[in-house]
Amino acid sequence: MATVSDIGLSAAINVSMAVAFLLVFAFLRLQPINDRVYFPKWYLRGMRDSPVSSGAAVQKVVNLNMRSYLKFLSWMPAALKMPEDELINHAGLDSAVYLRIYLTGIKIFVPISILASLVLFPVNWTNDTLDSMKVVHSKIDKLSISNIPYGSNRFVTHLVMAYAVTFWTCYVLFREYEIITTMRLRFLASEKRRPDQFTVLVRNIPPDPDESISELVEHFFLVNHPDHYLRHQVVYNANKLADLVEKKKKLQNWLDYYQLKYERNPSKRPTTKEADERQKIMKDPQSAVPAAFVSFRSRWGAAVCAQTQQTSNPTVWITEWAPEPRDVYWNNLSIPFVSLTVRRLIVAVAFFFLNFFYVIPIAFVQSLASLEGIEKALPFLKPLIKIDVIKSFIQGFLPGIALKVFLILLPTILMFMSKFEGLISQSSLERRSASKYYIFLFFNVFLGSIVTGSALDQLKAYIHQSANEIPRTIGVAIPMRATFFITYVMVDGWTGVAGEILRLRALIIFHLKNFFLVKTEKDREEAMDPGSICFDWCEPRIQLYFLLGLVYAVVTPLLLPFILVFFGLAYVVYRHQIINVYNQQYESGAQFWPSVHGRIIIALIVSQLLLIGLLSTKGFEETTPVLLVLPVLTFWFYKYCKNRFEPAFVRNPLQEAMRKDTLERAREPTFDLKAYLANAYLHPVFKGREEEDNMSISEDVGMEEVIVPTKRQSRRNTPAQSKYEGSDTLSLPETVHER
Amino acid sequence: MATVSDIGLSAAINVSMAVAFLLVFAFLRLQPINDRVYFPKWYLRGMRDSPVSSGAAVQKVVNLNMRSYLKFLSWMPAALKMPEDELINHAGLDSAVYLRIYLTGIKIFVPISILASLVLFPVNWTNDTLDSMKVVHSKIDKLSISNIPYGSNRFVTHLVMAYAVTFWTCYVLFREYEIITTMRLRFLASEKRRPDQFTVLVRNIPPDPDESISELVEHFFLVNHPDHYLRHQVVYNANKLADLVEKKKKLQNWLDYYQLKYERNPSKRPTTKEADERQKIMKDPQSAVPAAFVSFRSRWGAAVCAQTQQTSNPTVWITEWAPEPRDVYWNNLSIPFVSLTVRRLIVAVAFFFLNFFYVIPIAFVQSLASLEGIEKALPFLKPLIKIDVIKSFIQGFLPGIALKVFLILLPTILMFMSKFEGLISQSSLERRSASKYYIFLFFNVFLGSIVTGSALDQLKAYIHQSANEIPRTIGVAIPMRATFFITYVMVDGWTGVAGEILRLRALIIFHLKNFFLVKTEKDREEAMDPGSICFDWCEPRIQLYFLLGLVYAVVTPLLLPFILVFFGLAYVVYRHQIINVYNQQYESGAQFWPSVHGRIIIALIVSQLLLIGLLSTKGFEETTPVLLVLPVLTFWFYKYCKNRFEPAFVRNPLQEAMRKDTLERAREPTFDLKAYLANAYLHPVFKGREEEDNMSISEDVGMEEVIVPTKRQSRRNTPAQSKYEGSDTLSLPETVHER
Repeated sequence: MATVSDIGLSAAINVSMAVAFLLVFAFLRLQPINDRVYFPKWYLRGMRDSPVSSGAAVQKVVNLNMRSYLKFLSWMPAALKMPEDELINHAGLDSAVYLRIYLTGIKIFVPISILASLVLFPVNWTNDTLDSMKVVHSKIDKLSISNIPYGSNRFVTHLVMAYAVTFWTCYVLFREYEIITTMRLRFLASEKRRPDQFTVLVRNIPPDPDESISELVEHFFLVNHPDHYLRHQVVYNANKLADLVEKKKKLQNWLDYYQLKYERNPSKRPTTKEADERQKIMKDPQSAVPAAFVSFRSRWGAAVCAQTQQTSNPTVWITEWAPEPRDVYWNNLSIPFVSLTVRRLIVAVAFFFLNFFYVIPIAFVQSLASLEGIEKALPFLKPLIKIDVIKSFIQGFLPGIALKVFLILLPTILMFMSKFEGLISQSSLERRSASKYYIFLFFNVFLGSIVTGSALDQLKAYIHQSANEIPRTIGVAIPMRATFFITYVMVDGWTGVAGEILRLRALIIFHLKNFFLVKTEKDREEAMDPGSICFDWCEPRIQLYFLLGLVYAVVTPLLLPFILVFFGLAYVVYRHQIINVYNQQYESGAQFWPSVHGRIIIALIVSQLLLIGLLSTKGFEETTPVLLVLPVLTFWFYKYCKNRFEPAFVRNPLQEAMRKDTLERAREPTFDLKAYLANAYLHPVFKGREEEDNMSISEDVGMEEVIVPTKRQSRRNTPAQSKYEGSDTLSLPETVHER
Repeated sequence: MATVSDIGLSAAINVSMAVAFLLVFAFLRLQPINDRVYFPKWYLRGMRDSPVSSGAAVQKVVNLNMRSYLKFLSWMPAALKMPEDELINHAGLDSAVYLRIYLTGIKIFVPISILASLVLFPVNWTNDTLDSMKVVHSKIDKLSISNIPYGSNRFVTHLVMAYAVTFWTCYVLFREYEIITTMRLRFLASEKRRPDQFTVLVRNIPPDPDESISELVEHFFLVNHPDHYLRHQVVYNANKLADLVEKKKKLQNWLDYYQLKYERNPSKRPTTKEADERQKIMKDPQSAVPAAFVSFRSRWGAAVCAQTQQTSNPTVWITEWAPEPRDVYWNNLSIPFVSLTVRRLIVAVAFFFLNFFYVIPIAFVQSLASLEGIEKALPFLKPLIKIDVIKSFIQGFLPGIALKVFLILLPTILMFMSKFEGLISQSSLERRSASKYYIFLFFNVFLGSIVTGSALDQLKAYIHQSANEIPRTIGVAIPMRATFFITYVMVDGWTGVAGEILRLRALIIFHLKNFFLVKTEKDREEAMDPGSICFDWCEPRIQLYFLLGLVYAVVTPLLLPFILVFFGLAYVVYRHQIINVYNQQYESGAQFWPSVHGRIIIALIVSQLLLIGLLSTKGFEETTPVLLVLPVLTFWFYKYCKNRFEPAFVRNPLQEAMRKDTLERAREPTFDLKAYLANAYLHPVFKGREEEDNMSISEDVGMEEVIVPTKRQSRRNTPAQSKYEGSDTLSLPETVHER
């Protein structure tokens, strides 16, 4: 158990490391040569250019203005200065709302910290339980709940505090949800015309023997949305083409390089193959996926189609709001819809095993990485590993590295799982991965550190222990692990966040690229790696701090100031990064907030259950019913918020759509929406960077005639059973021309 | 533990009671005097009249045709003869699908019974574990899993059987869901024009200082559904008036009675007060509830409005498909929407206590009903209870009666809870009550009989036992309780169902009424009490048999034939009742099937978990993972079915709506839909039986003008914050005239 001086030492080390990082950052960012590493956002927005060579050449590389070094912390107020509205304009709503997660942390924990230090510190301190028990303990433990004697009435204070924490947290969460909903609605209302406002993604279009998918889509929507249907874009399975394009791009790079170096022309352009494939896809009906982006004349029409069920068979003609074109994850559009439920089951099972059994393959790798393992597997290395240095390296580092590599790879593995599930937008992929990562952190980091066992051991314990024994076992261990988590917060939270601002990896890679590869200004543009928020693995880590804060708020409130420092520092750092560095790949309009809200609620309920467990071992079992009220109320609060706010993040109100339609029709009565939407949802590989490659898409033919002659001659009198339906009797659209 | 002869005796008693009931029924139904008790459905359909006095007066009362008595079981084939399509026409889809629950039971358990008797009986029988252990046991136990020795490889048979049972059950469930979905869709498609096809219920209309609710609704829908809106009907809080009408009806009864008896005219008609109230409600804006039934020009328009979100604030202007007019539960329409979440929380907590703590008040009543209790509470009764007869009555019967009264009242209590929750249709009330009743039966009858403890004791056990200990404790007890459940099936299932057909209660009440009250033919009509299916308390009881069947299928397959007899008998009896007796109050189009399906799935998963628990005590723990696959797959099957079929029971496909609209417009181009819908959703008390009372509803004024002049002069320039929204910034419809 760490003493005060241990903590102090650790704090000193971490604070000085964090300060060192900040100092190095303050120095590096002032060097013009690093400008593209620390201010890429401004380059991408076109508001900054490579420094013009107005002075000496050396000034392009090193900043010689000594006065600027004096204000080395000036970026902090600068980061805080930009008002939120401007921030939304500058970086999008997603980024602005992401920052509000940190703000929520500050809002929740500042009053709780103050209240806890005023109330709980004196109550806990003025006992001598730990002294009299003669157990090894530090001054820190004297401030925690452990110092209250068994069965003392003082636990009433903690009980009241638990109520206060719950109500305050819920209040802040409610207010935040309200504010963010308003922000989202205002953002959506103020948005300019965007293709996705008019477009719906239709999936699982049932095959038809007489008509192509494109004709089928047109007929269906002309019949069922006659006043609103405008046009559609069939989805092609262009995954192979996308690979070719990727390959071409690499070859092009080498080509450019040799062109520059030797000024010779290649005999054969590498684009031929790619153009062939492109032609093939557009013509081959097999490459059309039974999915289409259908656009409507008005936002109202699209909102209606996205929210309603089209046919009596709910598994065909499935409509959903189309994601932003840049947010679409094209690879998954070609997954057959029927396999989605199977994929979901497979991923659920796989994730269960990953979460609880990941230690097994790692232990196996570790055993291989041991001296004996290497001797057995690769006997010819035997003389080598006899060398002392190598021997100690294998014994000391290899096992740890196996685990570390797994943890570094984890977000990638989780993202792969989410992709396998078949989600069709980048933003939903990130949200799904974040949920998985949170579950992993909860079991393997939070619970794993408390009961100090692998998740697998925990799983055994959960199965073999009774429902009221589990929170008790964990609850008892909580106060003892406070010092560990304080250290964790400092290492991961303080130093980690300070390291983020340094962007060491991006800095090194940029300079390497700059030195070896960059030939043209455009290359330099591409060498910049602004990165983005990485919601899928950043947000779950923030949630860990919420969890720690809420669990320890009543038990060992000393942890709270450390968490507060994290939230404050992270807020400033990420605000700076969002303003100057990150470049979001998509804009989901803060669609992630419901899950952020939900996870803080989970943390709150966990903290309540663990407190019940802890107090029941302290001779205070009779209060269990009083405390059990809290999780029930919290869950109810969650349901209430879900009803009240979540639809604003999922559905599209008709009133808003109608309002915008009306306004726009009055302002621009002659706007050609059809031309505007023409290529919006074309697979990006079809929109090559070369303008000469621009192909006209042929499925628009006949779109102007409202009644399209059907090809289904044979079916007019004999409605044959459609192949697709099998034993199903739900009927296909046949009324196309019967009305 | 019951022996074979015990079971045989019990079977003999129950079979003879059931046969006696059937004989009495066969006799009673042939008597013309009972015609209205046993064939009310035909009277209500107007296809049967009181026997005409063609012969002697005595023939109106007693059937003297001896030959008809010979065919006393002829009703059985008659009940089975009617084809399903005709049944749907005759009694509605709800009734026809309700019968399919029994059919599903037969389909699931016939093959399982055969397989089990072919495979499991020999495997179980050819052991002598029970003989060698010298425990008390009967021949029945020798057929059960108990007779297999510890750790025997024969358990593999049971394992394979568990897989077979699961796959067969899922297959039958899938087929049934498919068939019933098709039936529902065909039913909906073939339905004649009905007001609810065009109508949407709008709730929580936000108040407006300038406009009445009626004006507000009109403006809102004219703006947001301009092409589709037709008319609306504001909902009035007429609960008080309904009471008055009820009161009047009773007075009228007496009046009629006296009029008949004394032929004198009353000085004051009792209708005056009621007419006043009626006038008051229609004029008083306060009595208009912020809800309205909004009708559309087409089914398409209504389908769109019902499935979409109207405004950015999801808690106002909430739309849902309107229930059938006769299905509306009017009393709940006036509940303010904000209180609904609170009501739901209260009911959830109350039901939890009812389920687990109901023994406490009953124990209290029982203690009062004991000798000492009565002596203390009512000392003056002391001499009375000294009498031996009364004493033994109090000791022997009163405690049991308290419990019995509670169990009889239970469906009423659960229905009251559901009503308190604020559901707005009779059918949803019944479905909700059924869920609650099922939970109650599961814990208090099923688990209560197995572990023989009150639900409260169980609750303690669940909390204090580990997750894998609970199925083990219950699993071990299951084979031992087989004989008990066999007896239960015979008493409750066989005799109970046979008793149902006798309709003893309805018979007695009808004859009492007929004798004392009935004066006119109309009175006689009203004295008939056809009753209805009572989904809320009949369906959960069927589910109990599914649960028993699935749990014992592998453990003690001897139970299955008993359950099969129940399903067969019940199918015939209820088919007869549905054809001849019951009169459904509403038609929901089999909307209850998803919950029936879900509960059979629950039974299946419970049976799998209990088998895991049982086998783990038999030295066969290593099979747990093999068996754990089953609940995972079953749950996945449930999710799959939910996605595949449930939307057909909840949502309204646009294609169907469009098809019917088109067809109808072609057939009846001049149909006056507005007149047709005029009074469809008027509160029933406003449509008095007296036609002279028929009042014109005034809110239609101005409905023909599409643009209605707004009254909001003051708000054109200064959009004041609406009262309702409070801190909320989501805006109200203000674009009424801005476009």
